[in-house]
Amino acid sequence: MIRLAGITGEVVPDIGRKAMVVFCGDHGVTAEGVSAYPPEVTGLMIHNFCKGGAAVNVLSRNVGAQVKVVDVGSSLRELPDGVVDRKVRYGTANMAVGPAMKRAEAEKAIQIGIEIAKDLKVEGVQLAGVGEMGIGNTTAASAVASAMTGIPAQELVGRGTGIDEATWQQKVEIVCKSLAVNQPDRVDAIDVLAKVGGLEIAAMTGFVLGAASVRLPVVIDGLISTVAAFAAVNLSSDVRQYLFASHLSVEPAHRILLDRIGLESLIDAKMRLGEGSGAVLSFPMFDSAVAIAREMATFADLGL
Amino acid sequence: MIRLAGITGEVVPDIGRKAMVVFCGDHGVTAEGVSAYPPEVTGLMIHNFCKGGAAVNVLSRNVGAQVKVVDVGSSLRELPDGVVDRKVRYGTANMAVGPAMKRAEAEKAIQIGIEIAKDLKVEGVQLAGVGEMGIGNTTAASAVASAMTGIPAQELVGRGTGIDEATWQQKVEIVCKSLAVNQPDRVDAIDVLAKVGGLEIAAMTGFVLGAASVRLPVVIDGLISTVAAFAAVNLSSDVRQYLFASHLSVEPAHRILLDRIGLESLIDAKMRLGEGSGAVLSFPMFDSAVAIAREMATFADLGL
Repeated sequence: MIRLAGITGEVVPDIGRKAMVVFCGDHGVTAEGVSAYPPEVTGLMIHNFCKGGAAVNVLSRNVGAQVKVVDVGSSLRELPDGVVDRKVRYGTANMAVGPAMKRAEAEKAIQIGIEIAKDLKVEGVQLAGVGEMGIGNTTAASAVASAMTGIPAQELVGRGTGIDEATWQQKVEIVCKSLAVNQPDRVDAIDVLAKVGGLEIAAMTGFVLGAASVRLPVVIDGLISTVAAFAAVNLSSDVRQYLFASHLSVEPAHRILLDRIGLESLIDAKMRLGEGSGAVLSFPMFDSAVAIAREMATFADLGL
Repeated sequence: MIRLAGITGEVVPDIGRKAMVVFCGDHGVTAEGVSAYPPEVTGLMIHNFCKGGAAVNVLSRNVGAQVKVVDVGSSLRELPDGVVDRKVRYGTANMAVGPAMKRAEAEKAIQIGIEIAKDLKVEGVQLAGVGEMGIGNTTAASAVASAMTGIPAQELVGRGTGIDEATWQQKVEIVCKSLAVNQPDRVDAIDVLAKVGGLEIAAMTGFVLGAASVRLPVVIDGLISTVAAFAAVNLSSDVRQYLFASHLSVEPAHRILLDRIGLESLIDAKMRLGEGSGAVLSFPMFDSAVAIAREMATFADLGL
């Protein structure tokens, strides 16, 4: 609450206008069989977002937040109406055999994220949540986290959307192999994002950077957005003061990275939905905090 | 969500009408210097609740829940308008020197809680939260928890509303002394509540029992309401299926008792406000769960 007031420069911050941004991208690493779902699900979910039928839509309607879906890298050739088309490329390459993308592509995705954040600010949005859709992205996010923290993959990799023991083993091995093949430079966040990250992850990193630059508070969601935020903090440590955690997911890397950024989660509901659902679920708690501040101001006005 | 549907008997439970009940009582044990605040604060807060200026009022307005303040045992001789006057006695006796109250008084407070729950159901309330106000009640609640679980006081007693090391030591000693003086029978929850409990604690135990009897789902708040719910589960284990946890407070006994009841908290915001503030803060998460269920039903209707 104090941080919200600091960001907005108001004693009682106005956060009435909220938006949830969902960045989408596909992952070549799905060829290695690391996910419980086929990669086509990313595109199906983009359609679902546009129809308003996904969890993030329902939850956002329930709390009066707008949803913006930004495609920076899905495999979809034709996008449904309502998606912001900022495609950098049709999915990443398989990071287990080479870099996920070129450095210039990662930079472009970051730039798009920055622009989307600035656009939201211009549109009058006062609190933003950030989430994602991309089958295979917990594998990429775990690789980014392992590369940037030096923590071994087996301590970071979780079960994603629900995989069995054999798939988990495979996921750990693929993360290790991707790091061995690509040798990302851990002190160069852009290098890490390009070699073992994802287009939507890089865009979220940009979103966090852009939001901080225009003093827009950002609520992050699960592991993927937290990895993106961690990369943003590595690029510019000042952005951390504009960040808020929402829930704590079941992914083991999530708590580790929140600790490193210095954030505490508000919700502990053992969620693994993604899409930004945890962030939007936390929005009413921010409204509650503001309501408390507003009433206290009223007390002061009354001389009580 | 599945439990909510089971309780209401509806696939998409309607929980639009919500109420937050705040039971109030004073504690003779405050004479031992166990609290950071003087006992008069209980009465001041009751006035504050009626003016609508307390945290629980602000939070409830923010989520559209009604607040009902029930005085079962404060020291106030005259109650402000708006308080439900069901006073059993003017505060408990000092449990460090004898029983907090008579068994018949505890039974009366339990009966009042049952009636309040049934009244809410008749009024059309579909989801209830339960909280409390009573300076000294973390000491009483810790004594009840220690008596009923057999766990030593030093592992259960926390810092309440913010006490120093010496006061904490004193609080642990007073809990031990109260148990030694009164020898409550741990398998007789009413005996425990009478000897080392509190009027608002007993009323909340009744509230949980009464709510279960009319299939009204109840969201419990912090340590005190959780202790009351634990006593209710001891009296009738079936009531647990009507209970929902909201937040996890900083009081160490809270997690222990939630585990014993078999509940998981939704919010982990390091709160220590009491009043039911954590319960009401969680209400939007229940709305969100229902919204998800409603939309999924719509999908089924569409044949998708």
